[in-house]
Amino acid sequence: MKDKNLIKLKEQAYAANMSIVRHNLVIFTFGNVSAIDRQKGVIAIKPSGVNYDKLKPQDMVLIDMDANKLEEGLNPSSDTRTHIELYRAFKEIGGVAHTHSSYATVFSQALLPLKCLGTTHADYFYGDIPCTEPVPDAAIEKDYEKETGVLIVETFKSLGLDYRHIKACLVGCHGPFSWGESADDAVFASAILEEIAMQNLYTQLINPYVKSIKKTLLDKHYKRKHGKDAYYGQ
Amino acid sequence: MKDKNLIKLKEQAYAANMSIVRHNLVIFTFGNVSAIDRQKGVIAIKPSGVNYDKLKPQDMVLIDMDANKLEEGLNPSSDTRTHIELYRAFKEIGGVAHTHSSYATVFSQALLPLKCLGTTHADYFYGDIPCTEPVPDAAIEKDYEKETGVLIVETFKSLGLDYRHIKACLVGCHGPFSWGESADDAVFASAILEEIAMQNLYTQLINPYVKSIKKTLLDKHYKRKHGKDAYYGQ
Amino acid sequence: MKDKNLIKLKEQAYAANMSIVRHNLVIFTFGNVSAIDRQKGVIAIKPSGVNYDKLKPQDMVLIDMDANKLEEGLNPSSDTRTHIELYRAFKEIGGVAHTHSSYATVFSQALLPLKCLGTTHADYFYGDIPCTEPVPDAAIEKDYEKETGVLIVETFKSLGLDYRHIKACLVGCHGPFSWGESADDAVFASAILEEIAMQNLYTQLINPYVKSIKKTLLDKHYKRKHGKDAYYGQ
Amino acid sequence: MKDKNLIKLKEQAYAANMSIVRHNLVIFTFGNVSAIDRQKGVIAIKPSGVNYDKLKPQDMVLIDMDANKLEEGLNPSSDTRTHIELYRAFKEIGGVAHTHSSYATVFSQALLPLKCLGTTHADYFYGDIPCTEPVPDAAIEKDYEKETGVLIVETFKSLGLDYRHIKACLVGCHGPFSWGESADDAVFASAILEEIAMQNLYTQLINPYVKSIKKTLLDKHYKRKHGKDAYYGQ
Repeated sequence: MKDKNLIKLKEQAYAANMSIVRHNLVIFTFGNVSAIDRQKGVIAIKPSGVNYDKLKPQDMVLIDMDANKLEEGLNPSSDTRTHIELYRAFKEIGGVAHTHSSYATVFSQALLPLKCLGTTHADYFYGDIPCTEPVPDAAIEKDYEKETGVLIVETFKSLGLDYRHIKACLVGCHGPFSWGESADDAVFASAILEEIAMQNLYTQLINPYVKSIKKTLLDKHYKRKHGKDAYYGQ
Repeated sequence: MKDKNLIKLKEQAYAANMSIVRHNLVIFTFGNVSAIDRQKGVIAIKPSGVNYDKLKPQDMVLIDMDANKLEEGLNPSSDTRTHIELYRAFKEIGGVAHTHSSYATVFSQALLPLKCLGTTHADYFYGDIPCTEPVPDAAIEKDYEKETGVLIVETFKSLGLDYRHIKACLVGCHGPFSWGESADDAVFASAILEEIAMQNLYTQLINPYVKSIKKTLLDKHYKRKHGKDAYYGQ
Repeated sequence: MKDKNLIKLKEQAYAANMSIVRHNLVIFTFGNVSAIDRQKGVIAIKPSGVNYDKLKPQDMVLIDMDANKLEEGLNPSSDTRTHIELYRAFKEIGGVAHTHSSYATVFSQALLPLKCLGTTHADYFYGDIPCTEPVPDAAIEKDYEKETGVLIVETFKSLGLDYRHIKACLVGCHGPFSWGESADDAVFASAILEEIAMQNLYTQLINPYVKSIKKTLLDKHYKRKHGKDAYYGQ
Repeated sequence: MKDKNLIKLKEQAYAANMSIVRHNLVIFTFGNVSAIDRQKGVIAIKPSGVNYDKLKPQDMVLIDMDANKLEEGLNPSSDTRTHIELYRAFKEIGGVAHTHSSYATVFSQALLPLKCLGTTHADYFYGDIPCTEPVPDAAIEKDYEKETGVLIVETFKSLGLDYRHIKACLVGCHGPFSWGESADDAVFASAILEEIAMQNLYTQLINPYVKSIKKTLLDKHYKRKHGKDAYYGQ
């Protein structure tokens, strides 16, 4: 590997993979992050079944958009084809993260969306975060990991959601996937997701009758941080 | 900046902002603390959207009571006008803190007050801690952050509460604001608030019928720590 | 202070006070531990309102059984008279601990005893851990801290409980007190108490119909660790 | 002790015992791990009632399959005979772990199995993890620890479960036992068990109507990691 851009891509993917550990989003090998170089059509992704404490930047696996390995070495994450499917459909994203973080996974298992119950949520996600149905049997038989990605994409389409403003999806009976402009941004979305899932869970336990916040409040918070009228930050 | 008092004010605001991280009350940039110099009418507040691990004392933004920046440099927290409104109405406070700490935010989202269920609460807050309604639509459109402060002040007024003895308020669908004689004191109130919110949540889950403690016990605990008959401490 | 035994007593009380921080049983100043020298009738207890990170062994306050200070210096914990009352009634104990640890306090606030739901509990406490009623109004007016101790002792008496085998009590609307052969042993009881309170809470939330374990299992576990037929340990 | 294999066995048992502390599965002395040398019929197990922070590799106790100590020194864990019973019945295992980890113990106390509610579970355990009834009175009187092992084995037999694919069992009113090809593998199963118990608890609290996942999804996830068609890892 001599291409400096691809070395950098592997370093970005590595750093993002390590940060899901630092944010307490994974134990053992329960997660994977990838980064894409859109110009080259190359993805760097975590190798399959390697513990985080042994991971090195050079271990990241380079693949093309058909999941072909571009170098000798370790095999890519078994969830690779889910990542690819998201990169195909969500044209503007630069990174994908998948974890089994505790509270987000709880909602996946409960087959419940993360309703937007407060401004912590509204600051980062523009509305409820959907939960897909479990992957259908035919899709499980066919090409499970690819079909998981298809299911996420179809869910967004059927609900009329914009992946640029809702950067995560819960997969039913499985766990969360998130994305963003970069691998780091995808991990950031996963970390926020876990915190709001925790807050959402306890809110619904203490008050089962809460509803998603009103549109005016959602708009105010999301838009003060995102888009042309944003006034948050420097 | 040559004024020694204002350098000190920035240092106090900085230290208090960093302590909300140490007390696990924020992740990423979800919070802000300010300190006021009442004589000069100057407030030092966290800059908007800057991560805590990169924050320096000199980054604190100095503003006057109309939110005008007094120095070149970073922009103040987007919640600045809420802080100002609290300083205007609550004449004796020297610091304000705002977090999205997990359990306190849960009660904000559930639109439930923190009832005083035990002496841990009574030792620090003289009665139930209110939760406002969500900011009304007209107020969201007008001057959202200022109106959030107005809402807190109005809530205290309409409930006949004394801000000197109940140093925190939950804002509906948002999260907690707290205050105190200094920025440090405001953060201390936020930290206690988070612990009692946690205890309150689980108390109500295991026994939905609990009521606020009786007045005699509330008086005993609050007054042994505060006021002229206090006998706690040195 | 020249008496070596009393210097040692202060060191024991200090070490035990610091260990409640290490076991995450307190935040800020929410707790206190004491040790007694039965021969001298002298108690060493945490000073009132001093933060743990500033505490030193020599700060421990020496008092007699009437709460008289035996040295110049800091004032004893405001809960001192509760400790004294326990030392008076429970003749064989050498230490007392009081915390506001999260889950144990939840049960105090819920006015619910800690039923013995499993062997984790039965290994250390020989049966349900009672929760007193809140301190009655007349007792609050009279001598609150002393009456808190009286209430614990009366509760044990009326329920026919043996303080040597159930080394803790929840005070209604307040929090846990625990005791043991030494100050360290009292803290150990508080730490176990917090863990079983946590397990008990979630057990009752997931299965509201659970009952205390049967006598045969309670006897087996408690007695393999305690008493003449114990076969646990070295 | 000169036998290099047995020195190594003690080191493996020691390392596995220490790792249950690192994974936050025990407090104080609440747990024990053993390793077996099948050729020699020798087991190395944690000594009874020794704190983890004082444990050394040479403290591990060597016993034969009848629980006879093979060296002078410390006594073996009081749960030794449960381990032996599992080694007898489950011929292919090389290690056993027992903890009182918080969430797994909650399910033991609630007398509820861990239903397989998602792929986090399905990745490691091939189906629901059973909870035994409490040890019957006659068995408590007779040979309690041995009978605890018998109960686990009988429960697996009566439910038609394969210990090689479901590497853990909850003992009613007690806590989890787990096993694996090595002591390390047994601890790994305990750590996964605790995480899925946590996820399972909150899933059932937020949605009491969830059912175990469908067979197709269970098969897909378990078999992509285990068996001849596995494609996970390197």
